[in-house]
Amino acid sequence: MSRNVQINLEDVKHLATRVLTHVGYDEAHAAAITHMLYTCQLDDCQSHGLFRLFMCAQTMKAGKISGSALPELTPSDNAIVRVDANTGMSLLAVEKAMPVLIEKTRHHGMAAMAVNNCFHFSALWPEVEQLSQAGLVGMAMVPSHSWVAPAGGKRGTLGTNPLAFSWPRQDKDPFTFDFATSAFARGEIELYLRSGKPLPDGVAVDVEGNPTNDPQAAMDGAMLTFGSYKGSALSIMIELMAGPLIDDLTSLESMEYAAGAAGAPYHGEVILAFDPAQFSNGKLAQNDARAECLFADIIDQGARLPSQRRFAARARNIERGYVEISEALHNDLLALLEA
Amino acid sequence: MSRNVQINLEDVKHLATRVLTHVGYDEAHAAAITHMLYTCQLDDCQSHGLFRLFMCAQTMKAGKISGSALPELTPSDNAIVRVDANTGMSLLAVEKAMPVLIEKTRHHGMAAMAVNNCFHFSALWPEVEQLSQAGLVGMAMVPSHSWVAPAGGKRGTLGTNPLAFSWPRQDKDPFTFDFATSAFARGEIELYLRSGKPLPDGVAVDVEGNPTNDPQAAMDGAMLTFGSYKGSALSIMIELMAGPLIDDLTSLESMEYAAGAAGAPYHGEVILAFDPAQFSNGKLAQNDARAECLFADIIDQGARLPSQRRFAARARNIERGYVEISEALHNDLLALLEA
Repeated sequence: MSRNVQINLEDVKHLATRVLTHVGYDEAHAAAITHMLYTCQLDDCQSHGLFRLFMCAQTMKAGKISGSALPELTPSDNAIVRVDANTGMSLLAVEKAMPVLIEKTRHHGMAAMAVNNCFHFSALWPEVEQLSQAGLVGMAMVPSHSWVAPAGGKRGTLGTNPLAFSWPRQDKDPFTFDFATSAFARGEIELYLRSGKPLPDGVAVDVEGNPTNDPQAAMDGAMLTFGSYKGSALSIMIELMAGPLIDDLTSLESMEYAAGAAGAPYHGEVILAFDPAQFSNGKLAQNDARAECLFADIIDQGARLPSQRRFAARARNIERGYVEISEALHNDLLALLEA
Repeated sequence: MSRNVQINLEDVKHLATRVLTHVGYDEAHAAAITHMLYTCQLDDCQSHGLFRLFMCAQTMKAGKISGSALPELTPSDNAIVRVDANTGMSLLAVEKAMPVLIEKTRHHGMAAMAVNNCFHFSALWPEVEQLSQAGLVGMAMVPSHSWVAPAGGKRGTLGTNPLAFSWPRQDKDPFTFDFATSAFARGEIELYLRSGKPLPDGVAVDVEGNPTNDPQAAMDGAMLTFGSYKGSALSIMIELMAGPLIDDLTSLESMEYAAGAAGAPYHGEVILAFDPAQFSNGKLAQNDARAECLFADIIDQGARLPSQRRFAARARNIERGYVEISEALHNDLLALLEA
C-alpha cells in the first residue's frame, strides 16, 4: 500500500486549478471544474476527486473538447431550461443554468435542466445538493459510454448511468444518494486496475460474455448492472431521460463519437427539480417532520443513510483543514504539470 | 397444480364489476377499478388482475374506505395537479386527474399528479401507459406498508415502493417497466403463500432478522429490497417523493393507519409526466429514432425489453378473445358474490 500525503484544503484547489490551466482549460472552466473536484475530495470521494484530473487532462489531449467554450442558455417560457455546453466540460454550463433551474422550479413547481453537447466526468451529488441547499428536491441522470450489458445480454449497450437524488433537511445534511446503475462505477474498476486487485463476482463479463474478476478483462468486455433486470430497466430509463428525451446522445452514440479516444464521454445530462413548498399543500413543516420520522426509523435499527460516511468525512476534513490522498496519486498529479 | 378456466374478455369485466358492486363500490368506482383489473388480466399480469378483487373486498370489509367518494381536483396555475381521493380507491381520482396532467404537461413541458388520501392496490404500468399513449413520458411511484427493511436494517420501514416508467414509441408498444423496489412484490409473496411454495433466497428476513424462505415468516418479518443498498436508496426516494413531498403518508404511517386490518394500504401516489416534443429541441423524430437504435441493440443481443412478454400475452388474449385463470381462483372469486 502506498503512503498517504496530507494536502491543505486551499492547496487542493490550487493544485487542481494549476493542472487544469496547464493542460488547456481557461479560467472559467478551470474554476468550475476545480469547485467540483474540491467538493468531492473534501468528502473523501476519492474516485471523483483529484483523481479525475487525469481524465480532464486526457480529454483535452484527445482534442475534441473546447477548454474555453461559452455555455449558451436558450430562453423559454416552459419549465425546461436548456443549456448548450458547446463541446465544453459540463460543469460551467450547469453552473450557468443552475440559478435559472431554481427560478423555474419556484415558478412552475417543478422544472428540468437539459445540458447538451457536454463532456462529462463528474459526480452528480454536488449538483443535486445545490438544489437541496436551495430547499428543493433534486434528481440527476447522465449516460456515459456503452460499457454495460442489459440484463440477459452479452455486450455493452448501456452506460454506467448514475442516478442522484437529494432531499433538503432542516438544519441537517441533506438525504443524498448518487449511485451508478452498473454494479460498479467505471471509476471503481479503474481504481481496481490501478491497484491490481481482482474484482468481486457479478460485476462484469469478458469480451466473450463470460463472468470475469480481472479489471482489464472487464474494461475490455462489458460491465453488468446492479440488481439484475430491475437495475437494467432503470439504466435504460436513464439512457432515455438523459439522451433521446433531451435531444442528446445515448451511451452507444457517445462511445462511437469518442472513437476509441480516452477521456470523458461526450453526451447530455438532465437534472430535475421539485419544490416541496408547492408540492406539500402548504404543510412544509409537517411533511419535513414526516420525512425525519422515516430517517429516524432507518437509523434507529442500525442502518445508515446513503451519504452519512461522506458527511462525516467532510466534517472531519474541514475540522483538520486537510485531505489525504495516496502519495502515488499525488506524484502522478504533479507529473501532469511537467507534461 | 390447479386446472385453468377460460374467461371471455367481456366476462372478465362483468365478473369484476359484479364483485365490486356486490361488496360496496358504487358504479363510478367499480368502473374505474374494473378497467384496471381488466387491463392487467388481459396482459396475464396475474398478481394484479382479477386476483386483486379479494383485496378490494377486504378493503371494503375493513371499513375505512368509501365506495362512493367523489375525487376532488384542486385548481392550480403551476405544473402540479392535486387530486384528493377523499378516502376512496385511487383509480377514480387518477382517472379524473389524468386529462389535467396531460394538459399541464403540454403547457409546462413537464407536470406532476399528486393523488392524496387514497386506498391503493393497483399496478402502475396502466397509468404510465396512458401517458405514453398520449405521446408523453410517464413515471409513477407509490409507497405501501412498511414491510421492507432498509439495507443494513432488520425491520420493516419501507414499502414495496414500485417505480413505473413508460416511453412512447411510434407505431409500437411503449417501452414500459413497473417493478417493486422490494426483491419481490408483496403480491408475489402472497401467491407463494397461496401455492405453498418456498421463497427463493434473498427475499426476506423473519421477525428476528434472519434470512427465511417461508412465505408466512416473510409476511410476519420483513422483506428485503432488490439490489442491496442501491435498491434501498431508490426505495427511500420513492417514500419521499410519493409521501412527504406530496403531503401524504409514508409506508410506516400507512401501516399504522391500517392498525392490522387487511386490504389495500392508504397513502398517496405521485405521477410525473414529460413532453418529449418540448424536451427534444424540436427534433422529435430524430430522437425517436435514437431511442429505437437503443432498443434494437438490446434486442439484437438476445435480451428482452421489460414488457415484451406482457405485450405478447395481450396480443394473444385479444386474438383468442379470452384469458385464463386458475379454476381455484375462479371459484374463490365466485364465492365473493355469495358472501
